[in-house]
Amino acid sequence: MSEHEHTTHGYSADKEALLKRLRRIEGQVRGVSRMVDEDNYCIDILTQISAVNAALHKVSLALVQDHIGHCVVDAAARSAETGDATIVADKVEEAAVAIGRLLR
Amino acid sequence: MSEHEHTTHGYSADKEALLKRLRRIEGQVRGVSRMVDEDNYCIDILTQISAVNAALHKVSLALVQDHIGHCVVDAAARSAETGDATIVADKVEEAAVAIGRLLR
Amino acid sequence: MSEHEHTTHGYSADKEALLKRLRRIEGQVRGVSRMVDEDNYCIDILTQISAVNAALHKVSLALVQDHIGHCVVDAAARSAETGDATIVADKVEEAAVAIGRLLR
Amino acid sequence: MSEHEHTTHGYSADKEALLKRLRRIEGQVRGVSRMVDEDNYCIDILTQISAVNAALHKVSLALVQDHIGHCVVDAAARSAETGDATIVADKVEEAAVAIGRLLR
Repeated sequence: MSEHEHTTHGYSADKEALLKRLRRIEGQVRGVSRMVDEDNYCIDILTQISAVNAALHKVSLALVQDHIGHCVVDAAARSAETGDATIVADKVEEAAVAIGRLLR
Repeated sequence: MSEHEHTTHGYSADKEALLKRLRRIEGQVRGVSRMVDEDNYCIDILTQISAVNAALHKVSLALVQDHIGHCVVDAAARSAETGDATIVADKVEEAAVAIGRLLR
Repeated sequence: MSEHEHTTHGYSADKEALLKRLRRIEGQVRGVSRMVDEDNYCIDILTQISAVNAALHKVSLALVQDHIGHCVVDAAARSAETGDATIVADKVEEAAVAIGRLLR
Repeated sequence: MSEHEHTTHGYSADKEALLKRLRRIEGQVRGVSRMVDEDNYCIDILTQISAVNAALHKVSLALVQDHIGHCVVDAAARSAETGDATIVADKVEEAAVAIGRLLR
């Protein structure tokens, strides 16, 4: 990965925190498998799945915030410099599509 | 409403479209009330509520997109002009909080 | 409405409570329209829409609970009486489809 | 696991299918970690997270359906036999609480 990409993607500063959260989510999913394998009560498994959902939402939100704070803001600067408003409009549209997928 | 506010809020261009959608949602909610009042089958009522949820998600998404495309982009320009990075960071944070509430 | 239907649908006992909640939601949606019409800040409008979503979820959940507690339980009794397991299986499948639509 | 528990929990028939899905979800989460680690574009990561969410929703729904089709239906039979309506009412309430957590 080039230094440029680190700057563009913006989540590199929080990369370790994100990776730590994702490893934890992976462990939670493995825990759900174990509960199913050991025939745990379905309601208890659903409670654990709700915890995974909540953890994934937090990761999504961190990525959305990074995307807006870096990619959109960078695109706004490039639009301002070049006078080409489509640069930022495209990034905003892309962010809205991604957020829409999360809302479903 | 001042011209300033129109510019800042950004959804004024699509205001009529948003208001039309919201009036439709209001009618859909009234339809759900009528279904309950007439003792319609619960599954049919749930189907109608899912349609209201989907319509509300579309309105939310339009507002999020407008917020990012206008308030965040304007704040990015002000941050660039003034050298005060907190202006745009505050708007991004605020957007993330609002999106987080929608995700729940 | 026949007495039978009241018994089958099950939410008739809480009908007034449901209708009251739905009228309130209708008022909340009208409030969102007013906020858009008066060019309120988009984040404040999104906060209000999140409140509508939460209120709709509560209504959905009350209907799901009534459906399971009445329609599914009644179907279970009819399956037990007739020895036809498909009666209850169909109701359970129908409930799962409706819940799946709410989850999206 | 006793035969009793298999009967009560109800998802044992589909246990292998559930475990297969969960292993796949675990792999998907690991894929998200890899994307973050390799500085992939945030929108692409969000798309992958949406896929994990959708897969988890399917697992949740399968568990909800099993719970209603087995635990609630069994409780309905025990309520019918014993004349104690609280047995099934408690299971329905418990299911509604779990579904409510998924809706958030």
